[in-house]
Amino acid sequence: MKNTVSKFAPKDGFPDLPSIKGLKVSTINASISKGNKPDLLLIEASKGSTIAGLFTKSETCSAAVDWSRQTLGKSQNAQFPIEIIVNSGNANVFTGSYGVTTVKETVSSVAHRLNTSQDNIFVASTGVIGEYLDFKKITSKIEKLRENLKPDSFLNAAKAIMTTDTFPKGSSIECHLESTPIKISGIAKGSGMIAPNMATMLVFIFSDISIEKSILQEIIRKCNKKSFDRITVDSDTSTSDSLFVIATGTAKMPKIKSIKDSRVLKFQKHLQQLMLELAHLVIKDGEGITKFVEIVIKGAKSNKKALRLGKSIAESPLVKTAFAGEDPNWGRIIMAIGKAGVRINKEKISIFFGDHAIAENGSISRYFSEYAVSKYMKNDSLVVTVDLAEGSKKASIYTCDLTHGYISINADYRS
Amino acid sequence: MKNTVSKFAPKDGFPDLPSIKGLKVSTINASISKGNKPDLLLIEASKGSTIAGLFTKSETCSAAVDWSRQTLGKSQNAQFPIEIIVNSGNANVFTGSYGVTTVKETVSSVAHRLNTSQDNIFVASTGVIGEYLDFKKITSKIEKLRENLKPDSFLNAAKAIMTTDTFPKGSSIECHLESTPIKISGIAKGSGMIAPNMATMLVFIFSDISIEKSILQEIIRKCNKKSFDRITVDSDTSTSDSLFVIATGTAKMPKIKSIKDSRVLKFQKHLQQLMLELAHLVIKDGEGITKFVEIVIKGAKSNKKALRLGKSIAESPLVKTAFAGEDPNWGRIIMAIGKAGVRINKEKISIFFGDHAIAENGSISRYFSEYAVSKYMKNDSLVVTVDLAEGSKKASIYTCDLTHGYISINADYRS
Repeated sequence: MKNTVSKFAPKDGFPDLPSIKGLKVSTINASISKGNKPDLLLIEASKGSTIAGLFTKSETCSAAVDWSRQTLGKSQNAQFPIEIIVNSGNANVFTGSYGVTTVKETVSSVAHRLNTSQDNIFVASTGVIGEYLDFKKITSKIEKLRENLKPDSFLNAAKAIMTTDTFPKGSSIECHLESTPIKISGIAKGSGMIAPNMATMLVFIFSDISIEKSILQEIIRKCNKKSFDRITVDSDTSTSDSLFVIATGTAKMPKIKSIKDSRVLKFQKHLQQLMLELAHLVIKDGEGITKFVEIVIKGAKSNKKALRLGKSIAESPLVKTAFAGEDPNWGRIIMAIGKAGVRINKEKISIFFGDHAIAENGSISRYFSEYAVSKYMKNDSLVVTVDLAEGSKKASIYTCDLTHGYISINADYRS
Repeated sequence: MKNTVSKFAPKDGFPDLPSIKGLKVSTINASISKGNKPDLLLIEASKGSTIAGLFTKSETCSAAVDWSRQTLGKSQNAQFPIEIIVNSGNANVFTGSYGVTTVKETVSSVAHRLNTSQDNIFVASTGVIGEYLDFKKITSKIEKLRENLKPDSFLNAAKAIMTTDTFPKGSSIECHLESTPIKISGIAKGSGMIAPNMATMLVFIFSDISIEKSILQEIIRKCNKKSFDRITVDSDTSTSDSLFVIATGTAKMPKIKSIKDSRVLKFQKHLQQLMLELAHLVIKDGEGITKFVEIVIKGAKSNKKALRLGKSIAESPLVKTAFAGEDPNWGRIIMAIGKAGVRINKEKISIFFGDHAIAENGSISRYFSEYAVSKYMKNDSLVVTVDLAEGSKKASIYTCDLTHGYISINADYRS
């Protein structure tokens, strides 16, 4: 089935992402996905680039994830470029030794055609689980991909990695580290099978910053905790989630070699903002979405507790269907707080929908207005705040509603 | 909205439950629920009865659950009858001190009118969360309820506790303990907000067995682990879940006073069967159900691991929507195994839909037939088996599919 474009798709279309010196991309239709569209993407970063990454915690992850995680653990050869080869339409998951061969043949072909080391090559796959992926579909296209590498084809790249996504997702930031102008451009795909356990499907971020791999890795680990780890569409964790950040080092700046370098925190702040924007775009293309919802837990004793409660609410089918029905059914928020498996004092809890007080001190608020709150529920974007009144920690989880659209998309997707 | 009756409702209607000597019930319309139907139920067990119970683990449980849990912890006075007063339509949850007053006034009125001790009175409420429940609606009906107490009104009782249920639920077993004939009759309600963390909404089971309270409590704790703890409709845990088992002791038998009594295991076996039947009825009335699904995990190293994997599959929205679409999308089973947070060896896993081999040894089975499996998926009842091939433990979880019906029911329920 053809899905209509999410109403949360950016009004101005795909943003104009700045090209990153040393970074090129190329796409092609390799007939892996069923749609007649480019489904194979090659990303090349010039020699001397550094790469960091994060992967799904799934125990049944793809052969591509296995390969990339292992390769990231090695040193890349600075004399050669770094390559990422990405396909959509087939996740190459649960395909046994055949799946491993597909990855090996792909890597071997890329190493040969692009003249680089296998330790510099990363693989990502997204799509249907359990179907064999014929490596020849990929290896036969590598030469063509190489020929077409260009620095400014981010829109094509974002399109090539789409599966059930209804719009391509990209975001960028330009900033200064001391006096050096730095660019960061990122693309993402993801729509279903999104849960806050490294919930991304696929994300590729590029910057011209000059930075050592271990420091970049530490930065993205922190940024991820407050971006992709804070979103959930359906509580289902992908087998293919992969996030890569490449730093080409082409900006005119002394290389960042210490985590204590004052530029680290500044870059981290900007990267986190970019990652949160991309994470929001994934939710805004959540399967069947009609409401974009932020769940804020405040007044918590610990961040962990705030996150656990936020996720319990954001993942509850009953809460999500109430959002879909524009029903201010705050009783379901109470239910989801109760089932989170953390100790709370129910006499102290306050709940707000937007600025509207719903419940306070363990029962319905005396300011509660069914009329005003019902009107509020008609907004496209909703904020639900739960104040535990027991501490000072605060966390937000982002989600969407659970609709007939989700059922339609997922009862038909594979067939 | 009016829901159509589940296609899994027993073809022969509500079963003919045997009356239990010493046990009477009575129902009335107290205008608590919106429907024009009896919504208040009084259960009376003659003096000398014993009672055991289990309650939701929710941190935001109802005032009724708080009361009943506390009262169950006390000794009941054998000189007086035991009473359970139950209402549907309002869960009396998150209603603060007002809610506590409602329970206290209710108990006080029942104690007065039925001439019993407050320690012999239990309360259960089910329905909307967060709305005040006027105790006068209940207390004004107690006298009438008392007048109408009858031994054989189980169908009326089962109807009085329904909320989104589409059919009344009951089951019975007659057995012999040594030479004594014993009867067990049970009723249940539950349809949504059902998760395997004491997932029942409300269950009341009656027997004429003569048994000490502590032994009865231990028996139901064990039976529950293999019945109501094995079902999930939507992974949401009710704030009101309560299970009560009353033993009137009216059967002609020496009282069971030791857990080592040879009759204990026999009774436990029968009670567990009855509880599993009632649990299945709850799933068979799962909101929007079109498929009844058993997830079997076998070859596991531990029961805990088997249950965790089973629940991860049974609670996955993507798995459940695939069932709804009659799509043999076993990739989503792989995904749900992967996200369960337990170590598995993906190379060893086998998956079966019914008798059809789907995957074996880490990839698609050579016997896989899309045609045969697609045909199998059209059955009303499905069995999915996952063999981990690492041990000898086995567990089943029961669930239903996730359909447009679930969305319709829950996007409209409260309004």
